[in-house]
Amino acid sequence: MKPAVLQRWHALLDSKDLNAIDDLLADNATFQSPVVHTPQVGKQITGMYLKAAGMMLVAGGNFRYLNEWWNDSSAVLEFEAEVNGITINGVDMIFWNAEGKIERFKVMVRPLKAVNLVHEAMGKLLAMSKPA
Amino acid sequence: MKPAVLQRWHALLDSKDLNAIDDLLADNATFQSPVVHTPQVGKQITGMYLKAAGMMLVAGGNFRYLNEWWNDSSAVLEFEAEVNGITINGVDMIFWNAEGKIERFKVMVRPLKAVNLVHEAMGKLLAMSKPA
Repeated sequence: MKPAVLQRWHALLDSKDLNAIDDLLADNATFQSPVVHTPQVGKQITGMYLKAAGMMLVAGGNFRYLNEWWNDSSAVLEFEAEVNGITINGVDMIFWNAEGKIERFKVMVRPLKAVNLVHEAMGKLLAMSKPA
Repeated sequence: MKPAVLQRWHALLDSKDLNAIDDLLADNATFQSPVVHTPQVGKQITGMYLKAAGMMLVAGGNFRYLNEWWNDSSAVLEFEAEVNGITINGVDMIFWNAEGKIERFKVMVRPLKAVNLVHEAMGKLLAMSKPA
């Protein structure tokens, strides 16, 4: 049976209420981006990255999951989306704790064009979402 | 229990006999690279890409798998390797047929530096492995 964390994750994306992402995250959550090696540490910044990614990918309307794999404490969700005419194929790698809160969220994307697009788009979105 | 395909895959990497990769591939195998969108179609070219990737990543000596997820017909293996001082974090996504032969092999890597490194290194290796 699909882990409860994944069910909550899919329900959240279906609702398009990205602000509810924070409820799914552990306080020590980290985000590992497809672009930068160093993890982003903490619930707040992890939430910010996931919301920015959501705005870029999901809000476009053609985001979809292709496959998923899971075990007791982690999952890989393969997705595809099209942004600015470029197909982004990627994986969400989600690791959660015993309380079912997400501790680590890692994203990889392909091909190179998509990595460059994510790099540019995420930079702009994160600049906008920073406090003035 | 771990699927037989994965057991054979790990045994092959342990043996470092990359030429045996061909035995694991279906005739219609395709390779989807971290760099290029268009799949490489056919057993021969898929084998060539996997051997080039193996030479670059595994031959360096510090390649290791971090996690794996699987179901009846596919698996995701997360790996890490260091090449030229750059950490390459990636996934091997392996899809097989009812005969246990690999039909599709997809690779994604992060961060951007690693995608660029793979792009450059694979280009050189593939140029060398083409018939004169």
